[in-house]
Amino acid sequence: MFIQSESNRIIKEINSLRLKKNREKLGLFIAEGERLVKEAEGHIAYTLASQGYKGDIEPDYTADDRLYGKISDTINPQGILAVCRMRASEFTGEKKNSLYIALENIQDPGNMGTIIRTADAAGADGIFLSKGCVDIYNPKTVRSTMGSLFHIPIYRNTDICKLLENIEAVSIAAHLKGDKTPYETDMTKGTVIIIGNEANGITDQLAEKADALVKIPMPGKAESMNASVAAAIMIYEAVRQRM
Amino acid sequence: MFIQSESNRIIKEINSLRLKKNREKLGLFIAEGERLVKEAEGHIAYTLASQGYKGDIEPDYTADDRLYGKISDTINPQGILAVCRMRASEFTGEKKNSLYIALENIQDPGNMGTIIRTADAAGADGIFLSKGCVDIYNPKTVRSTMGSLFHIPIYRNTDICKLLENIEAVSIAAHLKGDKTPYETDMTKGTVIIIGNEANGITDQLAEKADALVKIPMPGKAESMNASVAAAIMIYEAVRQRM
Repeated sequence: MFIQSESNRIIKEINSLRLKKNREKLGLFIAEGERLVKEAEGHIAYTLASQGYKGDIEPDYTADDRLYGKISDTINPQGILAVCRMRASEFTGEKKNSLYIALENIQDPGNMGTIIRTADAAGADGIFLSKGCVDIYNPKTVRSTMGSLFHIPIYRNTDICKLLENIEAVSIAAHLKGDKTPYETDMTKGTVIIIGNEANGITDQLAEKADALVKIPMPGKAESMNASVAAAIMIYEAVRQRM
Repeated sequence: MFIQSESNRIIKEINSLRLKKNREKLGLFIAEGERLVKEAEGHIAYTLASQGYKGDIEPDYTADDRLYGKISDTINPQGILAVCRMRASEFTGEKKNSLYIALENIQDPGNMGTIIRTADAAGADGIFLSKGCVDIYNPKTVRSTMGSLFHIPIYRNTDICKLLENIEAVSIAAHLKGDKTPYETDMTKGTVIIIGNEANGITDQLAEKADALVKIPMPGKAESMNASVAAAIMIYEAVRQRM
């Protein structure tokens, strides 16, 4: 179907998905770009291409280029997007020797996407997000996951303190006051790696619940590191120990 | 001095620094925000605050809030910025057991800033940038270094292939076709860690020159990782081995 009018139902729905409120109400979000649309297979409600789109995906709808440009969120649009269905992951119990990531109040959409991508690369078993985290269906987050959003179970709105009471895995939080390094911490058994807010780290309440607080060594002059970098260093120390 | 007019010489100069061309011509760039301005000490040409600025830096100039809002690059400006002098780092020879980072054609300003911050945290001895890298004085890069730009020697416009011919340090490049992992690679002696372009990795020419190509293991479903994450995993493996 070819769409030329901004008042078309599909165009109006896609436009409405810019707002979290509407994404939640409809249970839909947008994945834009050739690669993401391919990764989204099995999650797609429908696809929309621009008239000038030259890729190999057969779209459900086509919009004229001007109209597509208006609804696209990217600077150099590839001319293809998918409207995808959210899928709530339900945590039904831990696996043996699992590796989980728990994020508390991560605010930056790019950091969130990058951590999801790293956890997926590392083969982690799932990601728990506290209520205060940025929306994973934010277009910038979806983009920076590079498709990993569709690969790994993500448990939203988790009470992380409560989670730690109910699982056997050892919880290890990155903390500037940690008393040992990740390299001195056993991550070969079931492990939950906890990363806190970019500016404030993890809350005192969560720090008390964690089994261990670890400090990533910083022999140089920087006083802190990017949250997605801290997550990567912790996650890959677990990968290294498990090799 | 209190500035109210857009045609003021200082305001015009600051505005002109949005463009790389002008930054290079004047040898100046902008560091915005309380923390960055404090880190910039020793590099500052002058500071400008908004009238409503409430911090503890004594500015050289004050602009009315409307005017400051217009020249600010940040969404929630703290009302203080410094115009800083670029300082060219000249590489005068390697240190014993040095740790260097070499970046080839890194394009994303946020990745560039994050890698500089991570290298600084790790206490690396310097960062070499190929000609094709994004400008480190781009406001987004300056911001994401969180001040590390002022801590660590950065050698711009480096011919990395030539560099590798002239130094003794072992060069180790992250590469999807690497034949061993970073964990099987000795980084305790003088080391250059090489990270390539976000989409394409390092060039074939550079891959041939490197002493070793290593692949970060990806046991999960993601096929690649963010460049600043790959850099962090490599850099911190060197930190771990040197502890």
